[in-house]
Amino acid sequence: MAVTDYDPKKFYDGLVKHGLIVPVGVQGAFGRGAVFEDVLERFNGLVTDLSKKDNPEVFTFPPVISRQVLEKVHYLDSFPQLCGAVYSFFGKELQAKALAERVNTGQPWGDMLNMTDVVMNPAACYPVYPSFTGVVPKQGRLVTMLNWVYRHEPSAEPTRMQSFRVREFVRVGTPDQVVEWRDMWLQRGLDLLQSLGLPAKSDVAADPFFGRSGKMLAVSQKEQKLKFEVLIPVISAEDPTAVCSFNFHQEHFGSTFDIRTTDGKVANTACLGFGLERVVMALFKTHGFEPKKWPAEVRSRLWP
Amino acid sequence: MAVTDYDPKKFYDGLVKHGLIVPVGVQGAFGRGAVFEDVLERFNGLVTDLSKKDNPEVFTFPPVISRQVLEKVHYLDSFPQLCGAVYSFFGKELQAKALAERVNTGQPWGDMLNMTDVVMNPAACYPVYPSFTGVVPKQGRLVTMLNWVYRHEPSAEPTRMQSFRVREFVRVGTPDQVVEWRDMWLQRGLDLLQSLGLPAKSDVAADPFFGRSGKMLAVSQKEQKLKFEVLIPVISAEDPTAVCSFNFHQEHFGSTFDIRTTDGKVANTACLGFGLERVVMALFKTHGFEPKKWPAEVRSRLWP
Repeated sequence: MAVTDYDPKKFYDGLVKHGLIVPVGVQGAFGRGAVFEDVLERFNGLVTDLSKKDNPEVFTFPPVISRQVLEKVHYLDSFPQLCGAVYSFFGKELQAKALAERVNTGQPWGDMLNMTDVVMNPAACYPVYPSFTGVVPKQGRLVTMLNWVYRHEPSAEPTRMQSFRVREFVRVGTPDQVVEWRDMWLQRGLDLLQSLGLPAKSDVAADPFFGRSGKMLAVSQKEQKLKFEVLIPVISAEDPTAVCSFNFHQEHFGSTFDIRTTDGKVANTACLGFGLERVVMALFKTHGFEPKKWPAEVRSRLWP
Repeated sequence: MAVTDYDPKKFYDGLVKHGLIVPVGVQGAFGRGAVFEDVLERFNGLVTDLSKKDNPEVFTFPPVISRQVLEKVHYLDSFPQLCGAVYSFFGKELQAKALAERVNTGQPWGDMLNMTDVVMNPAACYPVYPSFTGVVPKQGRLVTMLNWVYRHEPSAEPTRMQSFRVREFVRVGTPDQVVEWRDMWLQRGLDLLQSLGLPAKSDVAADPFFGRSGKMLAVSQKEQKLKFEVLIPVISAEDPTAVCSFNFHQEHFGSTFDIRTTDGKVANTACLGFGLERVVMALFKTHGFEPKKWPAEVRSRLWP
């Protein structure tokens, strides 16, 4: 397909045909092939290189987090439609037989499980905030993570996934420290993506808040310029895909998890994340499905 | 703590104190620090090196898979207590308000969500089988993956996790091809772990089947020698921890997903997986919490 030809289905089919992704019978949870993963790891490596001089602490969190974190940050107030809570079976022998019977005869079995203490992690930064409780050092804190993230939005459109990886950075400190850092990274992110031949642009953005009241929250978020995104056309020219997001949370997490700066004030936080699968798809869309045929300058950046 | 001193709590506390893992307020879902991850990646790299001559296909699957796969392979018959099904919110504005109200007033809210089409992946090999449907080449197929796996078994014991990574290999072919391959890897796995100074031993094993009838399944599985494990003492001398498992499924997946060999018969499958976090913990238990102080021959294997 031509670079200027935007069609989600054609793009998905192309990814499958070239072995880049593997269908699994459910939307937004496809497997990734070796070439897809190689590009993803190479791009992630460039992000690591860029951030090395900042000397971030490095963590990895599992795809599930404590349900209490979701409750405390009021995620269900804003994004109930996107949540994923993990349920399991708590019954005894007889109920287990009944459960198996239901499953094996194709009857619904959702009412036979109950909620566990874990939920899918909906944002790469969430699991780290509880570990910040207390007073952060004068220079603040800087953390990076690569976590799997879940959003319940099954879609045939390949860039809209239920499960994907985010390379995340979180900054904790005074408002000035945090905003300066976010602005610096907004430019860094643009430069990095443009250096790979991607037509990346930044814009003010809003989260997909649920319902009518959510619309007002989105307007307010945009007015306060709390969220920026870097966008690249992947499945539409008019409606480019967000591949990177930059969020200033003000005191939201600081007050929720009692994080303070040395002056005794509630700490501010900001985070930024590269949606790794989306960046990889932007590369395939822009340069074609075969990395061997990508422009030499892009290849030499990714495979030096 | 001394190498010969077995105590799950002391071991967990030592991992935390050395920044190797980060508590998250829920059992079996802790974060991993930079040093822990480095060891994990290095060990995974050694597995990759070992397998290179076999030229496996490489895939990565998300931590969630299609619910239909779990249903088709009869997972709920055998391990209902370990399953994790993903539930989300499907309601409208009014129900969303009621949900938020429940969450914010600390009331149970589990009955307000419904089952989605995805479940946590309980075994690293599961997502790949549906993609094998059809006739496999004469030499069979060989695939490797690194996937996050979920088991609902919260525990204070650090090697028993709800969420962990498995470096997996899957072989598809005739019974002879598959069994020969499994036996070859059983020795390879032992050699690899012993080369890292780990007191690894192999043994016949059984899966943790649910309930009374499960006990008979386990006996039969052991009698048929369908499952082997490689074990290393980590939290107990008498009851060593399985860090690697080797499973011969016979025709189970072949018949479920209509996978055939060139002679028209139902294909056999086997899989093996290294529990990466458990291998890393075995290294910390055996050689101490500070990799810089590990024996030179172990260090030179991991950081050549």
